[in-house]
Order: sequence, then C-alpha cells, then structure tokens
Amino acid sequence: MKLEKLVGDRFKERPSDCVIDSHALMIRGGYIKNVANGIFSLYPPLYRVTRKIEQIIREEMDAIGGQEVLFPVVMPASLWEESGRYQGVGEELVRFNDRNKSPMVLGMTHEEAAVHLVREYGQSYTRYPFMIYQIQTKFRDEARPRGGLIRVREFTMKDAYSFHTSREDLEEYYYKCYEAYKRIFYRVGLPEVVVVASDPGMMGGNISHEFMLLTPIGEDSIAVCSHCDYRANTEVAECIVENDDEGADEKPDLVYTPGMKTIDEVCAFLNHPVEHSCKTVVYQKKAGGEYVLLFLRGDLEVNETKLRKHLGEDVYPAVITGDCGLAAGFIGPFNLKGDFTVLFDRSLKDARNLVWGANIADYHYKGMQVERDIGHVEYHDFARIKDGGICPQCGKPAISIFRGIEVGNIFQLGTKYTRSMGMQYLDKNGERQYPLMGCYGIGVGRLAAAVCEARHDDFGPIWPISIAPWQVHTCCVRADSAESREYADRLYRELQEKNIEVIYDDRSVNAGVMFADADLLGVPIRVIVSPRNIRESCCEIVTRDKAISMKVKMGEAVSAIQDLIARLTAR
Amino acid sequence: MKLEKLVGDRFKERPSDCVIDSHALMIRGGYIKNVANGIFSLYPPLYRVTRKIEQIIREEMDAIGGQEVLFPVVMPASLWEESGRYQGVGEELVRFNDRNKSPMVLGMTHEEAAVHLVREYGQSYTRYPFMIYQIQTKFRDEARPRGGLIRVREFTMKDAYSFHTSREDLEEYYYKCYEAYKRIFYRVGLPEVVVVASDPGMMGGNISHEFMLLTPIGEDSIAVCSHCDYRANTEVAECIVENDDEGADEKPDLVYTPGMKTIDEVCAFLNHPVEHSCKTVVYQKKAGGEYVLLFLRGDLEVNETKLRKHLGEDVYPAVITGDCGLAAGFIGPFNLKGDFTVLFDRSLKDARNLVWGANIADYHYKGMQVERDIGHVEYHDFARIKDGGICPQCGKPAISIFRGIEVGNIFQLGTKYTRSMGMQYLDKNGERQYPLMGCYGIGVGRLAAAVCEARHDDFGPIWPISIAPWQVHTCCVRADSAESREYADRLYRELQEKNIEVIYDDRSVNAGVMFADADLLGVPIRVIVSPRNIRESCCEIVTRDKAISMKVKMGEAVSAIQDLIARLTAR
Repeated sequence: MKLEKLVGDRFKERPSDCVIDSHALMIRGGYIKNVANGIFSLYPPLYRVTRKIEQIIREEMDAIGGQEVLFPVVMPASLWEESGRYQGVGEELVRFNDRNKSPMVLGMTHEEAAVHLVREYGQSYTRYPFMIYQIQTKFRDEARPRGGLIRVREFTMKDAYSFHTSREDLEEYYYKCYEAYKRIFYRVGLPEVVVVASDPGMMGGNISHEFMLLTPIGEDSIAVCSHCDYRANTEVAECIVENDDEGADEKPDLVYTPGMKTIDEVCAFLNHPVEHSCKTVVYQKKAGGEYVLLFLRGDLEVNETKLRKHLGEDVYPAVITGDCGLAAGFIGPFNLKGDFTVLFDRSLKDARNLVWGANIADYHYKGMQVERDIGHVEYHDFARIKDGGICPQCGKPAISIFRGIEVGNIFQLGTKYTRSMGMQYLDKNGERQYPLMGCYGIGVGRLAAAVCEARHDDFGPIWPISIAPWQVHTCCVRADSAESREYADRLYRELQEKNIEVIYDDRSVNAGVMFADADLLGVPIRVIVSPRNIRESCCEIVTRDKAISMKVKMGEAVSAIQDLIARLTAR
Repeated sequence: MKLEKLVGDRFKERPSDCVIDSHALMIRGGYIKNVANGIFSLYPPLYRVTRKIEQIIREEMDAIGGQEVLFPVVMPASLWEESGRYQGVGEELVRFNDRNKSPMVLGMTHEEAAVHLVREYGQSYTRYPFMIYQIQTKFRDEARPRGGLIRVREFTMKDAYSFHTSREDLEEYYYKCYEAYKRIFYRVGLPEVVVVASDPGMMGGNISHEFMLLTPIGEDSIAVCSHCDYRANTEVAECIVENDDEGADEKPDLVYTPGMKTIDEVCAFLNHPVEHSCKTVVYQKKAGGEYVLLFLRGDLEVNETKLRKHLGEDVYPAVITGDCGLAAGFIGPFNLKGDFTVLFDRSLKDARNLVWGANIADYHYKGMQVERDIGHVEYHDFARIKDGGICPQCGKPAISIFRGIEVGNIFQLGTKYTRSMGMQYLDKNGERQYPLMGCYGIGVGRLAAAVCEARHDDFGPIWPISIAPWQVHTCCVRADSAESREYADRLYRELQEKNIEVIYDDRSVNAGVMFADADLLGVPIRVIVSPRNIRESCCEIVTRDKAISMKVKMGEAVSAIQDLIARLTAR
C-alpha cells in the first residue's frame, strides 16, 4: 500500500510517559493508541505484525496436533464456581451481572471453558490424547498495567489445553509443546528466549515453565547458573546458603542497641557480620489480619511467592500496632510473647553466634542459635536466591540474576480442573478416571512488544522479516522527478505482482522525513529510488539493520529483492 | 486430519430445544456448544468455516482500500459518554466498573473507538477518504437470544468505518461497500441475498441498508414489490392506502356497541367494512408513563419503529387504569378528555364514514370524518405495510411480505459521531469541518448459520466449497480390508501433498455411521474407498448436494478431485 494512505501518525519526540523503548517506539511509529489504562487499539502496522505472529503460532500448534476452537470472552460465573476460581481469583477477574442479573465473568484464561467444551467428548480413553487451542481476546484487570503492550489489561492470547490419560503422556506432550514454543520464538525472531522453571500460581499444578526474553526492562527476575543449565524464576528458585562452622560457640548475651531497628544498622553498630544475624519480617494474613513472623538470615530477602504458597493464602506486609505485643524493630524468636504464626527459613539451620532482636525495645541478643536456645523448629525455604548464590542443581556458587519478560508459559495442571469440574473417562478396564491436563499460553501483543524491545535502535523497531508489517519499503526520493516516479511506480507494481508485501512512500517530503518514517516502520528491506540513483541506472537496497547495503541495476532490482527476502527468511 | 481425532460429538437426534434447522444441525454436527444463554464455544469444524468467511470478508474489504485494525472489547464509559450513547443505549450495552471503580462497557459496536483512533490522524482534508475495519468479538446483551447462532449475545463481527469530506464521497464509498458486500455474500455461497432499505436505529444517520437472506425462519419482515425493484424492511417501508370516495357522506351517529371492544368486533356487530373504521392504539412513554394515543385505519397495524422514531423516545403498550380518563375499548378522537399525546396515521386522511370509539363505555360513533368532525390535524406514517399493499415506489398493489435474516448492514452515519466527539479537519480553505462517516457490519457466526439455513438437507449442512471446513471427505469403508486401507491412506497422503484440505475417516464403523457423520460435516466432495470399489480398480466421488456422482479409476482420483474442486470453486 501507499504510505500516504496509511492510517496513523508517526513522530520524532519520545512521549514523556513511556518508560521502555518498545512502548515509545510503538507510540511514535503509529502502532498503538491508548484507549484506557492498559487498553490499546492497534493501528494497521501492528495489526499486521500480530497477524503474522498468530499465523506462526497456529502453524506450530497445528503441527503438534492442535485443533483450533473458539471459547467465549464472556462466561457464566457458574463455570468458574465449578472450578473454585470464582472465589479463588482476586480482582483481576472482572465480574458483572448481565441484564437478567446472572453473574458473568470476562475470560482471563479458559481452563473452565476448555473442560466444558470436551467434557462429553472425552468420556472414553480411546479419544485421548487431544489438544485444543484458541487465539482470542482476554481481559485481566491488572492493578498496574505498564510498559505499553508488555503488561496490559486486554490482550490477544493463544491458549492451548491438552488432555491425557497418564502422567507420562502429559509429560511427553508437554515436552512437544516446549519444543514447539522454542520454534515459535525462533521463528518470530527471538532465538535467545530461555526457558525457566516457574511458579504455577493461580493456574494450579506442580510443574510449569516460562519462556523468558532476558532484558533489563523485564518484570521478572531469573536465576541463571553459569556452570550448569539451571534456570529458574527467582519466585521458585531454591535459596541455598552455607553457614560457616568456624570459631567457638558464643553464649547468649543481651546487648543495648539503641534505635537500631534494621538488621544492617544493628550489625554495623555491633561490628558483626550480617551473615551471623537473624532478621524478622512480619506479615499479616489477608483473610483475618493474623500476624506471621518469618525469621531468616540477615543477609537474605523474603520470597513472598514461597511464603504465600507455604501458607496457602495471601499476606501483606504487616502494620505493627502498639498493642499487638511486638516490639517493632527488635523482634526475635526467643522470649516471644503472643499468638503468632512463626516460621523459620532454612538459612538459620546450623547457624551459630547469631544476633537477633530481644523482643525488648532497644535490645538485641548476641551469640544465639535456634536449636540450642529455642528448641526444635521446622525449617522451610522462604528466601530469595541471590546474585552469586549457590546453584540448586550443581551446587556451585555460580548464580547470576537477570531481568526477563515472560513471553510464554506452559503448565502441567494435572487433574485440578477435571476433578473439580467432574470430567471423567472410562479407562480400558471400564474404571472411571480423571484425565490430566496441560495448558500452554502465549500473549501475542506482548510477544510483538518483546521483539521490538530486543530488536530496535534509537530510530525504530528492526522487525524480523517473518513478522514485519511489510517485507519491502520503497522510498521514492524526489517524487517530483518524472524518472524517479516512473521507475518507483513500476517497481511497486512489479513487486506486488510477485506477491511481495510493499509499503510505498511516494510523498512529496524530503528524504529525512521519508527515512525517519521508514525507520519507525522497521521494514527489513528498504529500496531507495532517487534521481541520483536513476542517473547511475540503479537503485539502492539496504536492510533496516544496516547489515546489507548495495546498489543494483534498475532491471535487476526485483530479482535482487526476491533473493534478499529469501536470504532474510532463511536466517 | 483424521476424523477419529476430531474433537466434538455427532449424533442423530434433533435436540428438542432447537427451533430452526441450522441450530439443530450445528448441535448435531459438533459445530457449537452452548456455554450460556446466547453464548457459544465453537468446535473445530465451525471455527474453520468462520475463518474462511473472515478471509473472504477481509479480501473484499482490502480490495476497497480498507485497513485492518483492532479495537478493544472493553472500553471506558467516557468514550460512550462523548457520543451520548452511554445514556442513549439500553440494557444491551453491558456496563461494569473495573477494579479502580472506573465505569467500563463491553463493545457492541465501535463507532466511538473508530473516531478515537483516527481523531488526530484525520485533521487534514488531504488524508480523506479512508476506511478502517476490524474482525473482533462483540457482546450485545440481547433480551431474547434465539436460533443458535442467528441471534446471540457474543459474536465475531467485521465492522468497518469510513471517513469522508463530502456527502458525495460518502455516497460513492457507500456504494462501493454495497458492491463489496454483494461479492462477499456471493462468495460465501449466498448469491440470493437481497438488499433492503432499513432503519438506522441506534446507529444514527439517515440512510441505511440491510442485506437479507429471505427465509421463513427470519426475524425481520421485508416488503418486496413484484412489479419494481422496491425492497425495504417493513420497519421503514412507507404504508400507503387509498380511501375510496364512493357513496355519500353520512352524518355522525352515536351507536350502542355493548361489550364490543376491538375494532373487528365492532365492525362485525355493525356489519360495517373495517376499512371504514378508525382504531386507537394506546402506548405509554418509557420515560414518564405519559399516554400516547395513536389513531389509524382499523385494518392496519402500528409500526412501533416509526412511532418511536417520530417521538424520539421509547414507548410500551399502555396499561389503561381506571382513573386515567380513557374508556378502554371505546376510545376515539372526538370528545376526548384529558391531556394525552394524540397522533393520526395518514391512512385516516380523506377517510369518510368512519366508525370510531365514542369515549363512552359501550358506545361508538358512525359516519365520522377527521377533518370535518375534529378539525385540522397533522398526519404521519405510523402503519405497517401489508402483504398485497401498495408499493411506495411504483404505486402498484404488488407488495409481498417475506421473512428474512439480516446478514449485513451498511449505514450513512453522517456527522453524528464526529460532531459529538469533536473530530474535525481543516478543509482546503483552512476552515474546520466535521467529517462524514459510514459504517458497515457483517456478523461472521450469523452468516455461517445463514448459509447452513439456506444450504442443508435433513442430514446436515451442504457447505459451499468456499467456506466448507474441509474440501474433501475421504471415507474408507471397511478399513479392516488391507487393500482399502492402503489405497485410502495413500490417497489421503497425496491429497494433502497437493494442499487439498482433507478429513479422513478410517474408523472401524459401518458405512451408515460413516456417511451420517459425513453428511453432518457437509464437506462438498466425498470420496468413498471400499473393497467393492477396489475390486473394480476405482473409487467413488460424490458431491454432498448429490449433483455429481461418479466412479473414477484409482490412479486418476487425485486429478479428478482437483478438477472437481476447480469446478465447484468456479461456480
């Protein structure tokens, strides 16, 4: 099409409210327009990108036997009551009443709808395994949408659901899907995406993986071992620390630590290593406000995902009131008075000569040990893995922490939904069984944004040819020159006849404006027709990433472009 | 794919809750599953049909310069407040608050979103005309969903919006879209769709047309002239009647009509022609309950769409209370006491010797005339056109009334939305102007259902090849015969290699089950491989509509199928 007719504006200034580059470029390039917080309309260039991403996803899902279906966006609350998520999920789930006062929800994920669709179909073992998927709009009422298309409230998602009669079959299919995902990310131009173990969260099940694009602007933090292939979201990565056994056991000693409320202040004041301290982090349970005291080594941080999972309920950082019996800033496990949930992180196991709060304002103890001074306690893993920490897989202190954008996730759900929703099949022996499920998601818009984040320069996105809005961008510089225009017009026609997707800029604007717009549209192959080139009987072909720049004879332009498309497509 | 793996069940019994055939067949054929009232999930066969319909629509929209975009399903209420429709539209518009208590709506149409997207882009006349469209999920909280996919609450729709700087340009584009729509309906296999003038309703604007599939199960009624090309939805069709001028003017005469409350009862009692009567239909305004009295000729019915349009507000059939001053059943225009909105249908103009209610219980007047007995009144068109009525275009009494399913609509919206939402452009003279808009909709699921309704037999849909879920359905009858299976397997492979879409049934079921399933899937070309055919070194090729049935040599099957696909595609 002609650029002149392309709906949307492009401009140079970075909008002040854009924190990340892909957001700024998508606004500047006329890709998206904000309709409400976390809700966008897509202009034609981004719509074209997302359609191509969808097609790649579709091909890979079909290749592993997926069958495309369509679930509704609006579902009756009763379906979510069956699975228990109507109550279980928080405010991200939009609930409303229809005109007949029936409670409805907006689909944020479709496990319930998937089970509903195949509950009767899947009544015999002979029909397993099977996988259904859809590419459809979802709405998730995020508290904090951010980063343009990185975290939105409304988005297009491919979500797939597989059904199996055995754990082995689920695992085998899960691995197939894992491989299909790797191909998808490779094909859209993100071969560097890594797979990490993750927390299933509200989806349920035990095993899940996330596909992560490592980038400083990512929302997730990922533990990567440089010595082995261990990779995990820090939400689930085990935190392993070693406590040294040097020196003799000290005796308990009450020390005056006036106004020293943080463990760092206390250790600095006492000139004591922070690894030999125990700090207290206090939470309250969301349901009833009950206090939860978590003790862990002073140099570690709490991983709240692990804490919530252990408790099986939500918590928030506590507000310590005067009458609750806690001496804020001086809390410790010894001589603690009151009825609290008390938890010990396993970093305290075998830790000696600890400093911890004395439960008396302005006092701490020194020389403490959990087992000796408190007695037997249960230890669990509540701490966040640290940069430089010990790898839970190979045991080497080789962990690095990276930021990442999650571009896909896969879950082994087990029988969570089939059991709660009463989906059963008769096995070979005529016995009723619950099928096992897997589910597999990719957010289309976020993936487009992630590609833009990974492939751009200051002037615009550098779209891989597999998902670029067009393959070729023809610039007719000085369209007022009859020779230029005639040749550029002909080239435009000829490329279209070869089914090449061309955007053609024949506007009467200067080359600077023309190239700035071309940069913002990020089309991989640019063809420049200008009076100077025409005088040399050639045109210029350059790639958006500047890797290739060449002059070709006018008559050979079409075949040179075809060759280049083939080369870019192959790599 | 193999039929054995196809998700969804097929069965013979017509579900008792299905009133129309397409609904029953789509349930029986494993096309749809009801999730809630008017909300469905789509199984793979129907998803494939709708994808093909979408692609045809997309090609035709692109061919008239449309640019595909994507608007959100969830929009802020503020956008609908700008246009005035947040208040103006009734309960069909789903309204809810998000987690931050911001009022939101679910998109049932996207004029507001379209204006929002291009409000800045369209600031100069040089950018006009342009058209944007999307294919996206919509939700309309219908009071009475019915007929499977014919009237649903959630549906996929193609909605297009064009923008213009002059009435002529809008009309020219409107006509282009009109032609594109005709091509779309032709290509999906409904060349018989007719275009009718229609009521713009909540969309606004003055001129609109509907594309109708005429069928007895349609929800709309259409006036079609057998003498000229007049076609209109009866909602807007002018009702023209002639009043005879035979005989002498009678004098007013009060007559006793005990217990005769309907005009038909009165006329029968008095042995008086009903064309010479005036009946009263009473409504109340929705806003305040005020009574509206509508007088029209006794043989006609009220067209409530015209009434609402005239009043500019909603009404409902009145509840006549004892104290309202109306003598229910005996109301007439003469000696009427009380403060009511009184309206006269133009059928009463020049009507003489009328019977009408006397506003006294059990009494009517005879020999009445409006102008003579009441004085000058304004007449408007409030009556519903009748079968056998006069054509508003050619004047001949040649109107027939048909039922129809609306499969598409187009509207000349004018400046309704651009004005209310403050979208302006600078014209050539630097003056600010409001652009004119057109909008153009097609419901994808309803179109699929309409094709099924028009193209089926008792055994299943007869899908046109352009939108069929697959092109070829291969039945391997007696798959336990090694020769049959070997040949059918090879044929399946070869057809796939030719990029032909095949569904392959190699199940160990009898031919009856196999053919019943094939009928339900409605694939246009069926290939039957059986031991008997193999013995004759051939296979059978039959079309779903039974028009073609032939035996071809085994080695020639692929090319025969290719030829047949080409023939079916061309017709």
